[in-house]
Amino acid sequence: MKPSTRLSKMQESPIRKLVPIAEKAKKSGKKIYHLNIGQPDIETPAAFLEAIKSFDQKTIAYSFSQGEPSLIRAMIGYYEKHGIHFAENELLVTNGGSEALLFSIIATTDPGDEILVPEPFYTNYNGFSLPVGVTVKPITTSPMDGFRLPDLATLESYLTPKTKTVLLSNPGNPTGVVYTSDEVKRIAELAIKHDLFIIADEVYREFVYDGFEYTSFASVPEIEDRLLLVDSISKRFSACGARIGLVASKNHDIISGILKLCMSRLCVPTLEQIGAEALYSVPQTYFDTVNTEYRARRDIVYEALNQIDGVVCEKPRGAFYVVAKLPVDDAEKFAIWLLEDYENNGESVMFAPAAGFYATPGLGVDEVRIAYILNQDSLKRAMAILDAALKVYPGRKK
Amino acid sequence: MKPSTRLSKMQESPIRKLVPIAEKAKKSGKKIYHLNIGQPDIETPAAFLEAIKSFDQKTIAYSFSQGEPSLIRAMIGYYEKHGIHFAENELLVTNGGSEALLFSIIATTDPGDEILVPEPFYTNYNGFSLPVGVTVKPITTSPMDGFRLPDLATLESYLTPKTKTVLLSNPGNPTGVVYTSDEVKRIAELAIKHDLFIIADEVYREFVYDGFEYTSFASVPEIEDRLLLVDSISKRFSACGARIGLVASKNHDIISGILKLCMSRLCVPTLEQIGAEALYSVPQTYFDTVNTEYRARRDIVYEALNQIDGVVCEKPRGAFYVVAKLPVDDAEKFAIWLLEDYENNGESVMFAPAAGFYATPGLGVDEVRIAYILNQDSLKRAMAILDAALKVYPGRKK
Repeated sequence: MKPSTRLSKMQESPIRKLVPIAEKAKKSGKKIYHLNIGQPDIETPAAFLEAIKSFDQKTIAYSFSQGEPSLIRAMIGYYEKHGIHFAENELLVTNGGSEALLFSIIATTDPGDEILVPEPFYTNYNGFSLPVGVTVKPITTSPMDGFRLPDLATLESYLTPKTKTVLLSNPGNPTGVVYTSDEVKRIAELAIKHDLFIIADEVYREFVYDGFEYTSFASVPEIEDRLLLVDSISKRFSACGARIGLVASKNHDIISGILKLCMSRLCVPTLEQIGAEALYSVPQTYFDTVNTEYRARRDIVYEALNQIDGVVCEKPRGAFYVVAKLPVDDAEKFAIWLLEDYENNGESVMFAPAAGFYATPGLGVDEVRIAYILNQDSLKRAMAILDAALKVYPGRKK
Repeated sequence: MKPSTRLSKMQESPIRKLVPIAEKAKKSGKKIYHLNIGQPDIETPAAFLEAIKSFDQKTIAYSFSQGEPSLIRAMIGYYEKHGIHFAENELLVTNGGSEALLFSIIATTDPGDEILVPEPFYTNYNGFSLPVGVTVKPITTSPMDGFRLPDLATLESYLTPKTKTVLLSNPGNPTGVVYTSDEVKRIAELAIKHDLFIIADEVYREFVYDGFEYTSFASVPEIEDRLLLVDSISKRFSACGARIGLVASKNHDIISGILKLCMSRLCVPTLEQIGAEALYSVPQTYFDTVNTEYRARRDIVYEALNQIDGVVCEKPRGAFYVVAKLPVDDAEKFAIWLLEDYENNGESVMFAPAAGFYATPGLGVDEVRIAYILNQDSLKRAMAILDAALKVYPGRKK
């Protein structure tokens, strides 16, 4: 028997689909530098495991569907420090930012509706939309101008009567773009004028470099009734495997509606919430140190890319990704070749082919997303491997 | 702005919607016996926390989207002991049985399709169907005959061209019914004859009493291509707050399709999987002890109910629930009255009104689901409170 049409239509994650090939390469003894996935090598602050290890109840019981009240208060305290104010009944704990995105899409759309997303975009936006009957309409942006958003009239040209929601990440995954205050206001204007919801994925908020001023969608009071803020501890505290996220909104109908979805899946893991709460007590110096480290990593990757003939990329201002255009026939073929057929002193490197981050067919075929999530020495070595590999890759373009 | 229609149409969980009222009662100093939710007071085997406390990696990293291979092998080993054979690529770890149900529904239906579910049913089956555009069509069963399934011709009368899937729990939540081998074969025959998928929720497999023989849907070879088995560690190991479940199928298109959904949400929490794996090593004596305890609890509740005038219920053979018809005007009003207006030496009791477990309007209005998940003394006390409360409840029916 065949699965549903919606499942058959889903594409495999461009971040994860090459994993079996990489596992095979590693089993054969090759060392692979993983720059394909946003899995940082930064240590999770010790407070996380310490809190969990001090858990002394005998039964691992259900938690509250909305999340543990003490974790919710810790999250609210975090936003207060950023000048963003949420009440306890305006924030729900979710299974990672992933579930927050899924629930936000369900909350703002019905089957057949459309959501606008600047492309290239975090590919799972599609992975959460398709299964619930929603179509992602891409607003094309380009590496040639640093993935800037188009003007209001161009944004409006993407609207149809089915458009319900604008979904975007800021800082951007996979682009590393950080929207200017003007761009944020432009999206707000679009939403107000055409009565759209905004789902703002701000999981990379701390990852902004070069003193660039960050504008949260939650700092625009005019859109508070139409904003769903999605967040996560995964990147902020290097705790990806904890799967703790949140959705916050001042629209109480939205929050009480999403709470019904939360009730359906009963709760988020109890222990992980205890660990997450402890993370919110790490001092500001933690973020400063991590930010400095990522900036150095970005500089290594960006400068190395800039020295390779035929590579095009703009210096990313945020997150920990860069999308680079490579002088190759097909970035996916190149990525597979790197894993299966290439090695440099027994080592190779793994990227995410960027075509999977575009919804428009044909775009991004010669682009890759590079996650600069390894230590500086590993990144230098990985970029040297890329440079050497491009010199001998059979599909190299002149 | 108003949420989507699908979200607005969702009902609140009958299990959880009275929680705020209960919290208020508890704050006022009243002790509440919680028989509304399947949260057992049985201790989680110590192996769970011990395994997690020995975790010594510095970074809480993403796990595999399909689940940790060692956990998958432990789950397969568990099924082998029950004569059920799955290969490693036929089983995916999920965020509780909840996510396994959601993914199974998405995998077997498209928006506008229907799934058949015997009612009363675990209310969240609706909570997973509605948001993905699917309608639950109830097959009505009744407390008057112990919730037996109707014959094949009656089952067929519920079919429409939109019917894609039969979903049922066995042992049954909320009914405590355990399907006979004949009933299981009847559902299999229905599915084969009309080309339907079967989603079998078998999370209560260990909770079968009185030596009744349990028939897993996975033991029927004729339906292996159309069967999705949903399972969870929540009840089996009294680890509800761990949120570890699974979906297994011998239909490889289904599993590789659901793996795409798993990739979208990246992974299940890393630590919880480590704990879950350890649970699969507990000896058979653990299950025997727990089963004996629940049987004793069931007997206390069933015998107490039988001695109250006007109560109708059949002795449940499985799970840890009983649906009882009470001599009251409205079971939800009665439940709220118990929390807000009644006390017996400073104590009261909380049930789940059963109407929320029926999809057919008007059914179950005077029924409650009682979860016998407290120790025997607490259950005796809770049933005494129920007896006393029914004598003075203003909406008591003669």
